[in-house]
Amino acid sequence: MSGVFITLEGPDGSGKSTIIKLIGDFLKKESIQFIETREPGGTFIGEEIREIILDNKNTNMSYETEALLYAASRGQHIHEKIIPALEDGKVVLCDRFILSSLAYQGVGRGLGIEKIKMINDFAIRGVYPDLILFFHIDPKITLERKLGNIDTDRLENLGGEFHERVYKGYMDLLKLYPKNIVIIDASRSIEEVLEQSINTIKKILK
Amino acid sequence: MSGVFITLEGPDGSGKSTIIKLIGDFLKKESIQFIETREPGGTFIGEEIREIILDNKNTNMSYETEALLYAASRGQHIHEKIIPALEDGKVVLCDRFILSSLAYQGVGRGLGIEKIKMINDFAIRGVYPDLILFFHIDPKITLERKLGNIDTDRLENLGGEFHERVYKGYMDLLKLYPKNIVIIDASRSIEEVLEQSINTIKKILK
Repeated sequence: MSGVFITLEGPDGSGKSTIIKLIGDFLKKESIQFIETREPGGTFIGEEIREIILDNKNTNMSYETEALLYAASRGQHIHEKIIPALEDGKVVLCDRFILSSLAYQGVGRGLGIEKIKMINDFAIRGVYPDLILFFHIDPKITLERKLGNIDTDRLENLGGEFHERVYKGYMDLLKLYPKNIVIIDASRSIEEVLEQSINTIKKILK
Repeated sequence: MSGVFITLEGPDGSGKSTIIKLIGDFLKKESIQFIETREPGGTFIGEEIREIILDNKNTNMSYETEALLYAASRGQHIHEKIIPALEDGKVVLCDRFILSSLAYQGVGRGLGIEKIKMINDFAIRGVYPDLILFFHIDPKITLERKLGNIDTDRLENLGGEFHERVYKGYMDLLKLYPKNIVIIDASRSIEEVLEQSINTIKKILK
């Protein structure tokens, strides 16, 4: 596969979704073919799965079921969208991928990083990102950024303690899986965050 | 957990669904508390997942996604319905369980028995059946029994070759996992199949 697979990871409110759009603008300007997509959706089947996961009605969902649904959605995403784009030689920009599951389900839910890695390895059939941009930010800052948001889903409603645990999970993962991960300081201005992101991407595109 | 967990397994058209009802009648007559349930549904979340799996629109579903959705549904089933019933001391009669995934996804889809066992072990948190009644029947007979059925779903439409492979998969599994599996000759009359099933259940309930 001749394309380049780039994922953006980090806690909620770290600014990933804003930056991914601006990276897309840059690639467009440079006439580099790309697709922008996100986890856990991005396909019709994936969006159907996403609805089940985020539905505020489904409060009695087992943690194992939640983790398997994320992996199922990711399996479809890889199969239907990411692999074909990489085979076409495109850059794939993906908002959240396997690192999110390791942090949220493996550490946040306490299911264990190894088990979550195992079910996700099955889902993604060996297609790992070439580059992971990790948006590093203190959870206290993201909490402030989120203040005033009314329209939250089942996972966003989990409260500070859960997100604190996810943050610590990410910190452990950065030590465990340093390969291909570049840490972006997401507490800085959008311009600075974008500049560091683009400079990193330029290196891998060469 | 003081209950007894019994699953009925075997290819489509082997008569499991008819026999499970009659076993229920027997348990009722004996004043034995039980629940009757089925895979992959049995819970609200599980039924939502089942709709995605069986939807004839979703022909481009990856095999990995399909296997993970079955496991996700099973994880919810175990958490919400089977474990609580076993903790209440009830008999749980379940139409299809882990053996179906090993045969359909592991062998039928060619994903490998070990991988499918791994994701299902994660889903079921160690809660294995105390007794598996395997309804053994030649796929040629089940195909004849199915003739005239118009209202088929995405998996039933897969054709003879797929179901032939599933049958061979079941035969391999019987050799690999003989523990707790009792083979029922499902080519005989309903009365004979029911009698063998109930005699086997009586032994485990003692």
